[in-house]
Amino acid sequence: MNKRMIVYMLGRLVSFEGILLLFPTLVAVIYKENTFLTYLCCALALILLGLLMSLIKIKDKTIFSKEGLVTVALGWVVLSLGGAVPFCLTGEIPSFIDAFFETVSGFTTTGSSILTDVEALSKSSIFWRSFTHWIGGMGVIVFVIATMKMAAGGGNIYLLRSESPGPEVSKLVPSSKGTAKILYIIYFVMTVIEIIALLFCGLSLFDSLTISFGTAGTGGFGISNSFTAANNPAAQTVIAIFMAAFGVNFSCYYLLLVKKFKDFFKNEELRAYLFIMLGSVLIVALNIAKMYESFGEALHHSFFQVSSIMTTTGYTTTDFNAWPELSRMIMLIVMFIGASAGSTGGGIKVIRVIILAKVGRREIQLATKPNKVSPIRCDGKPVSEAMVRSVCSYFAIYMIVFVISLLLISLEDKDIVSNTTSVIATLNNIGPGLEIVGATGNYSTYTNFSKLVLSADMLLGRLELLPLFVLFSPKTWKRR
Amino acid sequence: MNKRMIVYMLGRLVSFEGILLLFPTLVAVIYKENTFLTYLCCALALILLGLLMSLIKIKDKTIFSKEGLVTVALGWVVLSLGGAVPFCLTGEIPSFIDAFFETVSGFTTTGSSILTDVEALSKSSIFWRSFTHWIGGMGVIVFVIATMKMAAGGGNIYLLRSESPGPEVSKLVPSSKGTAKILYIIYFVMTVIEIIALLFCGLSLFDSLTISFGTAGTGGFGISNSFTAANNPAAQTVIAIFMAAFGVNFSCYYLLLVKKFKDFFKNEELRAYLFIMLGSVLIVALNIAKMYESFGEALHHSFFQVSSIMTTTGYTTTDFNAWPELSRMIMLIVMFIGASAGSTGGGIKVIRVIILAKVGRREIQLATKPNKVSPIRCDGKPVSEAMVRSVCSYFAIYMIVFVISLLLISLEDKDIVSNTTSVIATLNNIGPGLEIVGATGNYSTYTNFSKLVLSADMLLGRLELLPLFVLFSPKTWKRR
Repeated sequence: MNKRMIVYMLGRLVSFEGILLLFPTLVAVIYKENTFLTYLCCALALILLGLLMSLIKIKDKTIFSKEGLVTVALGWVVLSLGGAVPFCLTGEIPSFIDAFFETVSGFTTTGSSILTDVEALSKSSIFWRSFTHWIGGMGVIVFVIATMKMAAGGGNIYLLRSESPGPEVSKLVPSSKGTAKILYIIYFVMTVIEIIALLFCGLSLFDSLTISFGTAGTGGFGISNSFTAANNPAAQTVIAIFMAAFGVNFSCYYLLLVKKFKDFFKNEELRAYLFIMLGSVLIVALNIAKMYESFGEALHHSFFQVSSIMTTTGYTTTDFNAWPELSRMIMLIVMFIGASAGSTGGGIKVIRVIILAKVGRREIQLATKPNKVSPIRCDGKPVSEAMVRSVCSYFAIYMIVFVISLLLISLEDKDIVSNTTSVIATLNNIGPGLEIVGATGNYSTYTNFSKLVLSADMLLGRLELLPLFVLFSPKTWKRR
Repeated sequence: MNKRMIVYMLGRLVSFEGILLLFPTLVAVIYKENTFLTYLCCALALILLGLLMSLIKIKDKTIFSKEGLVTVALGWVVLSLGGAVPFCLTGEIPSFIDAFFETVSGFTTTGSSILTDVEALSKSSIFWRSFTHWIGGMGVIVFVIATMKMAAGGGNIYLLRSESPGPEVSKLVPSSKGTAKILYIIYFVMTVIEIIALLFCGLSLFDSLTISFGTAGTGGFGISNSFTAANNPAAQTVIAIFMAAFGVNFSCYYLLLVKKFKDFFKNEELRAYLFIMLGSVLIVALNIAKMYESFGEALHHSFFQVSSIMTTTGYTTTDFNAWPELSRMIMLIVMFIGASAGSTGGGIKVIRVIILAKVGRREIQLATKPNKVSPIRCDGKPVSEAMVRSVCSYFAIYMIVFVISLLLISLEDKDIVSNTTSVIATLNNIGPGLEIVGATGNYSTYTNFSKLVLSADMLLGRLELLPLFVLFSPKTWKRR
């Protein structure tokens, strides 16, 4: 394995994180906060450390699948460790494990929090916390590598593949660098539009920025103790629409940009995504109608909540923990399904669910005609058996990770619903679960051990399992 | 489709059920119960109806996969409808839907009950209720067809395949009739040994018979309101051992019979089954130790309960609903895993879990070496990709059925744990779940709609999904 190249890339990443830390430093300047010095020192320290790391001599620039996976896995861990330092040093989150949990939750766009009082944080820390969502949303490693001058002989695609959510990365343009560039531009422009829309709804610049970061990354850290944009239904509607929009596969937007409208509307994942979302919104609205003053209000909360949970953002406008069982169950199910592949959202992803359903249907057909194995089709094209196999395997590994996490979390004698949904909420990068970890609750009562397990789940969920497994596989580190 | 042949086979089945109803009739005679006439009339009516059905003219005796699946699916529904009649006519379970639920629960060896007071039933009905477990355990249709004089040109294997649990049916001897015969003999002999062992422990003949039926079929209907064989630890231990034994793939016992000891001990499913069971027993015992007087007592209850739940029997000696979270979670997980393929137990089956885990492991290896797809091996032999595909598909369909059932059950505003575990307990043919449907609870408070959904889940679980899907697929009934 090309270890020197990995150290070099990690160095670049650490420096980049240092640069990013200058933004909360700026916020501290604006709000004249005493966290200024801490953020500045952290920023400079990381920049320096990264530069030192990237001084390593590289003999061979080639990287392959294995290096890509290891870099991404290590990169995300390093990023989270570095990002946690200022929370700890400012004394706002005294325990490092808590700070690590919060930062992992940020970068993985989960949004689970151990804070009981968000408003006690400095503005700079609230900003940094929400900013991590935005950084983590589109995948930061690809960004760093894409901006590097040295093109590592086609190796970029391995990084792109490891960091992007979904079973497949289709290059929009021939080079993976070009593809990444287009995706980042779409991401940036959509975020800017949301910020402007929220400003129009009367939110402050600070609130608009932080909420937009949380929406774009489908993260969902709250910026106040109350519900998101409380008492501002217009802003809530804007947020709900943008959450749904950021849960769409970004390649679909590319199709719009290059005016392939027909392909856009024919996209099976997009249709299934909208169908599941709107279907759930309607059923939940009917189910909770009697709890609110008008059906309109029920629909408003239902749309916001389903959009938030299905895209795994996790913002709340109302305590859905108190909803009737049917709605709670629908919430749980869309938690698992999650957003589209190639979006910033988490979960199993709609396309995988589609393929699994088609695999099931094929098996039923095979039962009566055992000799006719026809390929599964998606968007009119046959799906390769390798892809089908990878989706099935993903599901299998996912369930195994889920079960092991459940067991480890159950060492705490909390109620079964809190324990189960805390694993679901972190593994799918959602944020809130039900009961103790519900919309009005938080993860502060879990032990350090459980917090580390849940942090691992967040990373496993965001990186879609494989990179971390490869990182911890002894085979990866064996000398040939 | 060869509809005439299906009607003929169903006729034979109905007659056979009539003959089986003579056993509870005999019980009514012995205990001088007034249910005697009802059982006798039901028996005679079914025998007559079956004979009429099998008078149908058959032009062609050949059957294929499709006919096999349809016969099995229809057969089990017809069997349950017929078996429910006496419960209803004696007035002991006045609602037909309740009686149907109870009978489905019996034949599918689930053991979920809607009865609040089992002891109010007549001895004959208690006998019939437990007897259905024994009939359903090994699959009744194969038995009926195996005893028919007409060998339907190799078509038996399709019936055997549809009715046997597990992803594959390995013929022990060249003919499927011969294979079935060996399996039934093992089943019968093991049941007899258990009956004798229980008699030695001081149980009455009636109790020994009914409890053994429930153990052999891994059904678990209680025969009294109190816990199984209360205050008789020796009998409980015998039951626990036999539950575990009936959860083993019967082909393993065949290996013992033909003295292939090496193959027996090398059997991967058997080893995994024992490993999961004993591991769970130990962890649960340690976890619940402080709740009981001695570690020995904790171990006793842990072994009984894990053996009961993992083999999906469902007998209880203690209220495991009151156990700590870790133990409750382990119970939930072994509920899903279930027993071995080719046993009388339900659940996903150990062999499928093994294959899924291996599929996952292969995918992690593939991540670093994308071009090397090596076959998955089990018991030293490569597993065909068709088999791997079928296991993955099974899992996918299973999850879809699970989610849809959850949604339908959640229309009732019961707590989420009761709703979820009631679906788990019926779909995996276990019996008790947690909370309302826990060890000391029952299913009586569910609405008729939910009872029908859960009945469908029991049938889907017992027949492993496919036959019922084929039965309800429009394609099956389309004329060519």
